[in-house]
Amino acid sequence: MTYSVAVSGASGYAGGEILRILAAHPDIEIRTVTAHSNAGQPLIQHQPHLRSLAHLTLQDTTPEILAGHDIVFLALPHGQSGQYTDALGGTPLVIDAGADHRLESVADWDAFYGGDFHEPWVYGVPELPVAGATQRERLAGASRIAAPGCNASTVSLSLAPGVAAGVIDPSDIVTVLAVGPSGAGKSLKPNLLASEILGSANPYAVGGTHRHIPEIRQALAAARAGARTDGAESAPDEGIRISFTPVLVPMARGILATSTAPIAPGVSDAEIRAAWQDAYGDETFVQLLPAGQFPRTADVLGANTALIGLAIDRAANRVVVVTAVDNLVKGTAGAAVQSMNIALGLPEGTALTVNGVAP
Amino acid sequence: MTYSVAVSGASGYAGGEILRILAAHPDIEIRTVTAHSNAGQPLIQHQPHLRSLAHLTLQDTTPEILAGHDIVFLALPHGQSGQYTDALGGTPLVIDAGADHRLESVADWDAFYGGDFHEPWVYGVPELPVAGATQRERLAGASRIAAPGCNASTVSLSLAPGVAAGVIDPSDIVTVLAVGPSGAGKSLKPNLLASEILGSANPYAVGGTHRHIPEIRQALAAARAGARTDGAESAPDEGIRISFTPVLVPMARGILATSTAPIAPGVSDAEIRAAWQDAYGDETFVQLLPAGQFPRTADVLGANTALIGLAIDRAANRVVVVTAVDNLVKGTAGAAVQSMNIALGLPEGTALTVNGVAP
Amino acid sequence: MTYSVAVSGASGYAGGEILRILAAHPDIEIRTVTAHSNAGQPLIQHQPHLRSLAHLTLQDTTPEILAGHDIVFLALPHGQSGQYTDALGGTPLVIDAGADHRLESVADWDAFYGGDFHEPWVYGVPELPVAGATQRERLAGASRIAAPGCNASTVSLSLAPGVAAGVIDPSDIVTVLAVGPSGAGKSLKPNLLASEILGSANPYAVGGTHRHIPEIRQALAAARAGARTDGAESAPDEGIRISFTPVLVPMARGILATSTAPIAPGVSDAEIRAAWQDAYGDETFVQLLPAGQFPRTADVLGANTALIGLAIDRAANRVVVVTAVDNLVKGTAGAAVQSMNIALGLPEGTALTVNGVAP
Amino acid sequence: MTYSVAVSGASGYAGGEILRILAAHPDIEIRTVTAHSNAGQPLIQHQPHLRSLAHLTLQDTTPEILAGHDIVFLALPHGQSGQYTDALGGTPLVIDAGADHRLESVADWDAFYGGDFHEPWVYGVPELPVAGATQRERLAGASRIAAPGCNASTVSLSLAPGVAAGVIDPSDIVTVLAVGPSGAGKSLKPNLLASEILGSANPYAVGGTHRHIPEIRQALAAARAGARTDGAESAPDEGIRISFTPVLVPMARGILATSTAPIAPGVSDAEIRAAWQDAYGDETFVQLLPAGQFPRTADVLGANTALIGLAIDRAANRVVVVTAVDNLVKGTAGAAVQSMNIALGLPEGTALTVNGVAP
Repeated sequence: MTYSVAVSGASGYAGGEILRILAAHPDIEIRTVTAHSNAGQPLIQHQPHLRSLAHLTLQDTTPEILAGHDIVFLALPHGQSGQYTDALGGTPLVIDAGADHRLESVADWDAFYGGDFHEPWVYGVPELPVAGATQRERLAGASRIAAPGCNASTVSLSLAPGVAAGVIDPSDIVTVLAVGPSGAGKSLKPNLLASEILGSANPYAVGGTHRHIPEIRQALAAARAGARTDGAESAPDEGIRISFTPVLVPMARGILATSTAPIAPGVSDAEIRAAWQDAYGDETFVQLLPAGQFPRTADVLGANTALIGLAIDRAANRVVVVTAVDNLVKGTAGAAVQSMNIALGLPEGTALTVNGVAP
Repeated sequence: MTYSVAVSGASGYAGGEILRILAAHPDIEIRTVTAHSNAGQPLIQHQPHLRSLAHLTLQDTTPEILAGHDIVFLALPHGQSGQYTDALGGTPLVIDAGADHRLESVADWDAFYGGDFHEPWVYGVPELPVAGATQRERLAGASRIAAPGCNASTVSLSLAPGVAAGVIDPSDIVTVLAVGPSGAGKSLKPNLLASEILGSANPYAVGGTHRHIPEIRQALAAARAGARTDGAESAPDEGIRISFTPVLVPMARGILATSTAPIAPGVSDAEIRAAWQDAYGDETFVQLLPAGQFPRTADVLGANTALIGLAIDRAANRVVVVTAVDNLVKGTAGAAVQSMNIALGLPEGTALTVNGVAP
Repeated sequence: MTYSVAVSGASGYAGGEILRILAAHPDIEIRTVTAHSNAGQPLIQHQPHLRSLAHLTLQDTTPEILAGHDIVFLALPHGQSGQYTDALGGTPLVIDAGADHRLESVADWDAFYGGDFHEPWVYGVPELPVAGATQRERLAGASRIAAPGCNASTVSLSLAPGVAAGVIDPSDIVTVLAVGPSGAGKSLKPNLLASEILGSANPYAVGGTHRHIPEIRQALAAARAGARTDGAESAPDEGIRISFTPVLVPMARGILATSTAPIAPGVSDAEIRAAWQDAYGDETFVQLLPAGQFPRTADVLGANTALIGLAIDRAANRVVVVTAVDNLVKGTAGAAVQSMNIALGLPEGTALTVNGVAP
Repeated sequence: MTYSVAVSGASGYAGGEILRILAAHPDIEIRTVTAHSNAGQPLIQHQPHLRSLAHLTLQDTTPEILAGHDIVFLALPHGQSGQYTDALGGTPLVIDAGADHRLESVADWDAFYGGDFHEPWVYGVPELPVAGATQRERLAGASRIAAPGCNASTVSLSLAPGVAAGVIDPSDIVTVLAVGPSGAGKSLKPNLLASEILGSANPYAVGGTHRHIPEIRQALAAARAGARTDGAESAPDEGIRISFTPVLVPMARGILATSTAPIAPGVSDAEIRAAWQDAYGDETFVQLLPAGQFPRTADVLGANTALIGLAIDRAANRVVVVTAVDNLVKGTAGAAVQSMNIALGLPEGTALTVNGVAP
């Protein structure tokens, strides 16, 4: 069967990427695209790279227009999805690419976002080790899915195997990310102007203020819950601490996350490496590189692939995990479509590519 | 008086930057420029931006040609300076921009470089807190100076005040750097091709193998020696550990170093901030930004300035120091000229600019 | 049926892009990949973005190893294909991504390349207007195909409709191109280092020396032959003159060609626009944008699409055609695969995408 | 003596660059900086690279605040300078970096800008050949100066020697420029976002609509007037036609202008080259490169230098002139300060550098 789809926020970067991927999906008909301020304009005016969708016109983002499709993707700023989700009660599958349905903790929501709290949906990172299994099992048949934050899923995928296996200590994680500005969306902010980004590395949200921090803690807590084999679905994240610093660098797309954590006492190099190998050895879209090799973001451009390089630095007593993703694909839109495929029972990789566009 | 100068490695990036700075120095006459394989060619062919030096021709890099100047700058790959330094016994001031005279520990040299060990020279990072004073005092009147590694001086300047004051714990430092490829020199390596760097973030020397690690440990040990007030000139670096990961990003110049270290027990936020403020409050070329502000590499492009932003993340129990430098200026050539000025008793900032070229 | 394929030059940029596209082709089995100096190494070591081809090992590029496949792609420097083409007499389809089989004129070959001349093969730019039809007709059933030069096909597609329709004067064409360095291949040349390209615009081959000039003249002559309705297959290119200046800019991929030519006397704006509309109105991969719109290279990244914007500047008496292509796809590898599809009678767009990866 | 200076538009890119240059000027005291919406904020908040000016606070841009200085720089959007210039009647020297006082033709102003026409001031491109001399003579002692448009001065300097000498035909000029986005200012426009510019070449103002076109025609007419030796100060620009296409490329600064014009009948290569050599042979900041060499924008980054490469393409019957400038320095702020130096009788190169910051 063919599923009808509506995509809101279709003039933005996340919405555009969802459309780019769905345009190649044999089971999907993109019926409706919506955008707030640009309603009435041709989609192609805002997404001139989506040549195959030149026939679509942006409509207003209203519950009425979004309703009546098999699947609705919400690619809206945080705090805006909630008003639609109530009205979409009859929609079989809703996938929120925003933050509104990611967090389980009201306290975290209040501290990092604020405004109305919305119930958590199934988290859309299929390969994430969680409670002795993976997030994939929870996504099967799901009707409400929260696609991940791009930085959050990158870091969670980087470290969850080690946390789940107990080979690293999650109480003193340090992550620094080189990120492209498309992750910040198409907002007209002075610090996102090309003249400010070109030739420069620009840190932001330094010192523990980035909104993806609680999302990472939550994911790692879920991974640790598996390690504890206590079956808790959403484990408390006590003792999980992360220093998290993103740095904007001059590339449109991509995240290169360098994450380190102390080596747990007494574990061998082989045990450490086995944690990641066991977690991802059978995965298509999350791949552990051979020892001594590390990924580049160009290698996953346009692909739904997370590439992970792992080093064990005994002198510093830290495991170093370097992970490359395309923030708009594996970080957001690809994760959303992969989760959709799983929820619908379609082949998981439909419309998703494993090969990057390089150089 | 006017000092005559010879610069070896003049066709490379570090040599070119030394020349760019010296070309504006009122007390310097650039008399000789040398390069191995390009001898006989006009300098301007290899440094087309140095318009005011179009009259110079590259000569061979031999002890004979370098001798007979008041000052010689060596901008050569590591392992090559040693053969010249012996023959330059009669030269009043020799400054090595390479690594050969930086390390005090033979064991470190053997582990990270290999080949003949050369005696350590006075380290050319004037503002570095060391043994209760600064490195500036040691540079006054020096005749042999080792200019720093660009990554090393950036990280050492970032953390030395905290180590010297005892407000951070140097046993678990984590540093990740966004660096431009000019730091790697003009070598013809496939991973330095534009097609490989553009649009991509590329980690290298992951897991504790980068050659600047012992240089940082040595500088922080010197800073700690000051804290210990034991007067030791080159303190052992036991207990100083650093996880160090550089990431090549698509900007020609610049280093943005994000360094974190655990907060020492019991210190207040004010005490932490005071450590850096006290160290750098009177400095021209190393500036601590106000709380909540963080630097961008573009702001120091072409300048001899290190800009430091400081955050205290109590949730992660870490101090986060973000430092921006131009790797070729404050990281290398500017440090060399600043050290030269000090050694000669000239005004320290002669020919050096504090303002960056932005955007 | 499934066609077996060998790709030579598989460690380079053009070879890698052919592989990236073929990896998604349902009718192709990539059986053999070869490279001169890297034989024996895993393909993935040189093309780390081609995750689905991680099982392949580079073999030596010899006639014996290339023989025995249904299709052979040659992605070699010019002057090297000839030695293989003789030995591949039994191969049903050979596609040369190099220059050896593009030019019809021995004089042009001698003037711009030199060395042995090789016979011209069918030129692999399907949409090119030629002799009252398109190049597509000549490609149907072809067994030997010369894929185009990336700059050449971009400019030829830009101007051929106007030449064929007689609405522009081909005797005074001026083209300036912004091009990414991947078009120059993975060669270790100083001017291709990232430090040289980042933040800079660098002209090369200025003043009429670029090797793609005779290829453009040849294609436009073929287009004009159609206008003359004289049925000549390879028309002489007298009176076709082009000032051609490429400029390397800091993007890995992409060509933005700005081509201008005098307006032919007496033609109306509508007639001018109709020339391009008639030529490309039914094409999938060559699209004329609406009046007032112009393409960006990002919009065709990874796509087999050429986007063309057309302006008529009566004050300057020139038609201005701005065309964006991905040099590695529509400019080279995509053109090769599209031509292959036509030659084999497969659907022309198999494995090729019309949507770009943006932003 | 020390001149007191006020700079309006000080939070923008042009204003910031004027300040960067003046900060190194021994005869200038920067007393006042103004900006519309950002009045009351520290300058350093908007220009974090201007460390030596950290003590300055932005004031409102009013005639009262600007009055009372020896020199006022206006770095405002076009159409805004006029309201201040009347009130600055008592100011000895006013330099407008905007467009309001550049054009001599009301018709051109109406066609390309619109709104109130303002009287033309002395054009601030000292080296421009004009009426048998250079623009420098007109600037000596001037009290009102119009700094040039960055693209305009680049193209005018490129071609004026050939027009003045009669060796090229100005009736069919074609210019394509690779330009960095800083030339467009700090405006919050979607097409100037980093995600749109990174990895992409983006044409704009295609087809003869760019506002710098009449400025170029005016400058070339002045150059031709010199050739005519008829002494006319502002020659009509009949017969001067230019196809002009700028392309935004991913570098913060820089203009690389490729300009071509037909070779005048009967002139020799030596005569052509002599035209440029004679015009610029004694200049410091405009340099003709040796035959066969062409400039890169990186070579003039931060410098007040225009580098010109000249090719003679007999096959295309065109002279090709490739010129590199830093749009913010030689294109705008450097030209303004150089003109100021001339007007005040100071050494022309004070505070201006000829060497670029490369790589």
